[in-house]
Amino acid sequence: MNIQEILKKKEIHPYLLNVRYGMEKESQRVTLTGDLVTSDYPKTLGNRTHHPYIQTDFAETQMELITPVTESIQELFRWLAAIHDVAYRSMSEEEMLWPLSMPPALPEKDEEIVIAKLDNFEDVLYRRYLAITYGRRKQMVSGIHFNFEFGDSLIRQLFQQQTEETDYLQFKTEIYLKVTRNYLRYRWLITYLYGATPISETRYFMEEKQPAEPVRSIRNSEYGYKNHEDVRVTYASMPEYVADIDKMVEEGKLSEEKEFYSPVRLRGGKKMADLATAGIRYIELRNIDLNPFEQFGISETQVEFLHLFLLFLLWKEEGAQPDEWVAEGDQKDNLVALEHPLSETVLVEEGRTLLAEMSAFVEELSISVSENLFSDIVAALEDPKQTLAGKLYLASQKSSQATLAVEQGKKYYETAWEKPYQLAGFRGMELSTQILMFDAIQRGIQVTLLDESDQFLKLKAGKKIEYVKNANMTSKDSYVVPLIMANKTVTKKVLDQAGFRVPAGKEYDDEATALTGYSEFADKGFVVKPKSTNYGLGISIFKDGATFENYQEAVAIAFSEDTSILVEEFLPGTEYRFVIFDGETKAIMLRVPANVKGDGKKMVAELVAEKNQDPLRGTHHRSPLELIQLGSIEKLMLKEQGYTIDSIPEKDTIIYLRENSNVSTGGDSIDVTDEIPEDYKKIAADAVAAIGAKICGIDLIIPDTSRPAEDPGAYGIIEANFNPAMHMHIYPYQGQSRRLTMDVLALLFPEMMD
Amino acid sequence: MNIQEILKKKEIHPYLLNVRYGMEKESQRVTLTGDLVTSDYPKTLGNRTHHPYIQTDFAETQMELITPVTESIQELFRWLAAIHDVAYRSMSEEEMLWPLSMPPALPEKDEEIVIAKLDNFEDVLYRRYLAITYGRRKQMVSGIHFNFEFGDSLIRQLFQQQTEETDYLQFKTEIYLKVTRNYLRYRWLITYLYGATPISETRYFMEEKQPAEPVRSIRNSEYGYKNHEDVRVTYASMPEYVADIDKMVEEGKLSEEKEFYSPVRLRGGKKMADLATAGIRYIELRNIDLNPFEQFGISETQVEFLHLFLLFLLWKEEGAQPDEWVAEGDQKDNLVALEHPLSETVLVEEGRTLLAEMSAFVEELSISVSENLFSDIVAALEDPKQTLAGKLYLASQKSSQATLAVEQGKKYYETAWEKPYQLAGFRGMELSTQILMFDAIQRGIQVTLLDESDQFLKLKAGKKIEYVKNANMTSKDSYVVPLIMANKTVTKKVLDQAGFRVPAGKEYDDEATALTGYSEFADKGFVVKPKSTNYGLGISIFKDGATFENYQEAVAIAFSEDTSILVEEFLPGTEYRFVIFDGETKAIMLRVPANVKGDGKKMVAELVAEKNQDPLRGTHHRSPLELIQLGSIEKLMLKEQGYTIDSIPEKDTIIYLRENSNVSTGGDSIDVTDEIPEDYKKIAADAVAAIGAKICGIDLIIPDTSRPAEDPGAYGIIEANFNPAMHMHIYPYQGQSRRLTMDVLALLFPEMMD
Repeated sequence: MNIQEILKKKEIHPYLLNVRYGMEKESQRVTLTGDLVTSDYPKTLGNRTHHPYIQTDFAETQMELITPVTESIQELFRWLAAIHDVAYRSMSEEEMLWPLSMPPALPEKDEEIVIAKLDNFEDVLYRRYLAITYGRRKQMVSGIHFNFEFGDSLIRQLFQQQTEETDYLQFKTEIYLKVTRNYLRYRWLITYLYGATPISETRYFMEEKQPAEPVRSIRNSEYGYKNHEDVRVTYASMPEYVADIDKMVEEGKLSEEKEFYSPVRLRGGKKMADLATAGIRYIELRNIDLNPFEQFGISETQVEFLHLFLLFLLWKEEGAQPDEWVAEGDQKDNLVALEHPLSETVLVEEGRTLLAEMSAFVEELSISVSENLFSDIVAALEDPKQTLAGKLYLASQKSSQATLAVEQGKKYYETAWEKPYQLAGFRGMELSTQILMFDAIQRGIQVTLLDESDQFLKLKAGKKIEYVKNANMTSKDSYVVPLIMANKTVTKKVLDQAGFRVPAGKEYDDEATALTGYSEFADKGFVVKPKSTNYGLGISIFKDGATFENYQEAVAIAFSEDTSILVEEFLPGTEYRFVIFDGETKAIMLRVPANVKGDGKKMVAELVAEKNQDPLRGTHHRSPLELIQLGSIEKLMLKEQGYTIDSIPEKDTIIYLRENSNVSTGGDSIDVTDEIPEDYKKIAADAVAAIGAKICGIDLIIPDTSRPAEDPGAYGIIEANFNPAMHMHIYPYQGQSRRLTMDVLALLFPEMMD
Repeated sequence: MNIQEILKKKEIHPYLLNVRYGMEKESQRVTLTGDLVTSDYPKTLGNRTHHPYIQTDFAETQMELITPVTESIQELFRWLAAIHDVAYRSMSEEEMLWPLSMPPALPEKDEEIVIAKLDNFEDVLYRRYLAITYGRRKQMVSGIHFNFEFGDSLIRQLFQQQTEETDYLQFKTEIYLKVTRNYLRYRWLITYLYGATPISETRYFMEEKQPAEPVRSIRNSEYGYKNHEDVRVTYASMPEYVADIDKMVEEGKLSEEKEFYSPVRLRGGKKMADLATAGIRYIELRNIDLNPFEQFGISETQVEFLHLFLLFLLWKEEGAQPDEWVAEGDQKDNLVALEHPLSETVLVEEGRTLLAEMSAFVEELSISVSENLFSDIVAALEDPKQTLAGKLYLASQKSSQATLAVEQGKKYYETAWEKPYQLAGFRGMELSTQILMFDAIQRGIQVTLLDESDQFLKLKAGKKIEYVKNANMTSKDSYVVPLIMANKTVTKKVLDQAGFRVPAGKEYDDEATALTGYSEFADKGFVVKPKSTNYGLGISIFKDGATFENYQEAVAIAFSEDTSILVEEFLPGTEYRFVIFDGETKAIMLRVPANVKGDGKKMVAELVAEKNQDPLRGTHHRSPLELIQLGSIEKLMLKEQGYTIDSIPEKDTIIYLRENSNVSTGGDSIDVTDEIPEDYKKIAADAVAAIGAKICGIDLIIPDTSRPAEDPGAYGIIEANFNPAMHMHIYPYQGQSRRLTMDVLALLFPEMMD
């Protein structure tokens, strides 16, 4: 089979870059000063037994972050970002992740390196065995495992273009075996470029045998964490590979198949035995050191280069003798790993040839590659200072590698904590969805984005699947219930017929008829509003009645927003938003119009600027609170109160800048859940039950919460919302946070909340 | 209490016409030639025990149509219209309703007048007693019972404006007692105007005592169906009224309280005894003859006049002696009832005074009244030919009263059957909602319109309430499921992940990226479409691939309709719409583009005109099929086939006028439910189950239904619809009707489907 001829075919080109990536990244948990922590795996992460995103590796301190399978670099990195965000913010605020593959200073006593406290006793036993066989210190090294799979459509196209192999699975296996052998042969280039363990930290090596530091990669050298020398496995063919591993296990050289620590692991099925029947599904590169200059331990450029490199290795002819070919690679890799990080590699000439071939390959197949990718790699080949090991060694010279690691680690820590309400990687999504995803990832519920712009998620735990849109539209509500809530007239009729107090009112479909209603409302407080808009547009409020002219104008304004309008009795009192989930009042919020409090010294504009410093305030609904504006509406409002933006309000005087209390126009959100008496909570919950909703935000007007709720006129229900904003309750301006997103998950996956 | 002074107050005026009406209308079922039927109550109406709309009165042939309580004349008449539509179309097509109060020719033998076959034995016993006491023939007369209630807001306003009566219920009772006494005193005017039983039909009177026909109203005269003369009840006060009736029952003059057949019945609570405690809630006028010139037995003008008359009677002073006052009314009414229909009434002078007072009252209180209402009434007072009895008598002279009744009856019958897919009174609503309402009314499920323009219904049977929007959005589906279906990308992902075949494809959010996808689709059949529009707009289909220019153009067209587009593999085959309710395939439809079949004689335009004669075809989705157009698209399509609208296609040649198969552009709907093999039905049902939907329309492309559905490529799922059009299945162009609306009701109220 001439793979090069096949790859050149035009039909193949659309599929060439089809790919699936996944990543597992280990990191040691350390204090903010870089000491290994003594704390357990964070409790906030729930049960780690089946946690799909955040696990423990060998030691209790060694966190393993696992991305789902992704289909692009962009997707891979957004998941890396998100899982890092969750990992950081699930740990104590006193902890961070150590950014080096090399662990920080290790304890003097071996037993102070605590083996992961897993529930499954077999897992613990295996780690105990590893500790005895390889030593606990060696196990503390961290790295990246990069799972790589050619797109199925690519392999199917290749399969169709050849005739020699008739079995698809066999064909696929051969593809991966070739790539694996070539990777093992040429991986020294990866070690040269991306090796990043030049120096060991205190008490990593306790034995005599140590490398002559600095080197390029202790971890990839013979001093790294490797199988004993008598473990030998061929990559010549799948049956031979499986047979060899079986033999090693039989002979006791490996305790079990997973102890085989090849720099490339062949993957498919759940157990290695499946490989023989189902073939290779993907390969796992295990030789990547953590890149301390990158927040997630690896850069997008590195991933792109690895991808191209693997594709190139499929194209590139290999040596005739598989075992010798691989052995040659092992030897070369060790050589490069142990070179001084600033010295030219002895393999520079082979490197030049390799990169030139790769460049020609990319051009011949018209593969689109990021600008500077090749020139930067070529430059690094010529200049060791541009390799990761070179950069790390040089930077460490200024102080120490550990100091640098703490600096880098703290930078990443601060990034993760800067806007704790956002989820890195998904900041374009609605805030409530970001928080819900955070909570799901934290609890180990698998998240799949079905449609990002539509805020559509698939959640999965065990065999159970739930779909969620806009963070709280779920299977728990019946279809017709949100339709009831979406229609103000219908909501009112349903509540009224169930005996709840709603403002009396009428619906009109034309202006002439609406005007005949004047006499009914004229002398009382009333509100004129469009039937179905939701943003406060077109609403006129007359707290003490209105002239016919005012009424006429209000009717016209409302009709400019909708084809139907409502004229309703005005209910005086304070408006509270009750959030009810499954019959329980989970949060109550008071919203206060945008305001500042005078201190007798600062001008209004300064007070606003000061209040806007709050990290909770931002723009475009990507923060729990919005910045207070000083636009024409606010200036007019100030003017009406006898102020300008330069006025200096007296101490403790509160100056309102808006009439409406919407958080979206700079209002304050104040949690008052614990202050509202039970009887009002019951009214709200009962009203939601009358509508039949499981998830609902319901707005009550209450003139005086100290009056019993059963008093006539004690409350009035203004509106019910089937998609209540949750972020404002989770990050209120004032008062206690109510983690409503976790409550949504508890409704969907009660079994995951233990 | 000076009620006139109170009514004059300006505060009262907005509430003056607030009112609640309800109507019960009896009619005999007859054949299309006017003979009393011998058939039972229609089985289609389900169980009549608690039927809220359609009941039987005394005889099995005597249907009673009952409206819900309504708050305007318009609302009352739309319900009358709807219930009549349902009644007509629930009977055999050989039956109609007799439009006169006077029954048609009665059988010779008494026992051939069949007493209503009710389930409740007590109800049957009571009718047997009535048959013995009053005779079966007398019981066969029909009429209208008009339930009248002043708006609660009006009575509350009146109550607040006075100080004499402190008990609200007592006040209300007094209001109604006054109106009742005055109505009894002046009801002769109603008999004069609206009396409509001038002549008896064959064998109505079998005894000697008969009126000297013609008269104005046999039914309201002493010859009508009345209590025996020894039944005397006072209206002086509520306690006296209740005591009198109790006494009559005790003395055996009445079998029970409901046998008291006053022209006005006082109503409140379930039993008469409740009147004493809860007071009068409304009054029931029982003296209205059926108006044979009106489809529903009464006109809107009659209702308006009755309303104003009752309001006027509240205003008008009454006589000092209640019993004498009422007795005077009884005597005058009998006098007028027995006058010749074309003679001037002896009470014409009292009538003139009454109408003049009423007119002044209306003016003084600025009540808005329909044009000509008073002038027509005044004219009828002066000219007996303009009274109902006068008109009926005159019209009957041309042939006979019975012939006229058959003519009128058939006219109403034909109106009811003209467009059997519509529901009179609610023709502005969506067709599926009209049909669902028809079915609900037929089955005795109470229907409340919550929002007409939003197609929002409340359905109730027993204590169970269900809400329905757009005829099939119900509580049976969970909220997130229609959201899945509303998003084509999400639907495809869910179906794909569950193992169903969906067209391969990609979603693009910008044109540049979309263009890079060309190579992937170029050489196969594919479709470019906007992500979320639903009306076929912006879709380009390339059955055999396309040039880059064509692709580019198609992408631009799709983006002109939406911000995201889909490029999908084209699946060849025939598209079928499967409708699945609760896991069962209820209907499968094939939609064929607008077409005509040549006969070798007619031109295309004539063939189209001929096909458009089908009463199922109409416009604006208020018919199951749309008219075939001959616009520019159709002409272009003809041209491409070498035709014009003047061409004469050969016999049996089918000429297509559209490429798309939408029913909305004149396409034909063909039911193929019984022709599609079970395995495809299972695929469709399983796919719907995978989405989690209870009510779903799912579109499958099937190249060949004779192939097993499990064959690779045997089917592809194009789309799932959470609000599938139902009317096209109920009234298909060809094939069997599938009553999907009844299936929706069966899902919601299985207990009502026995």
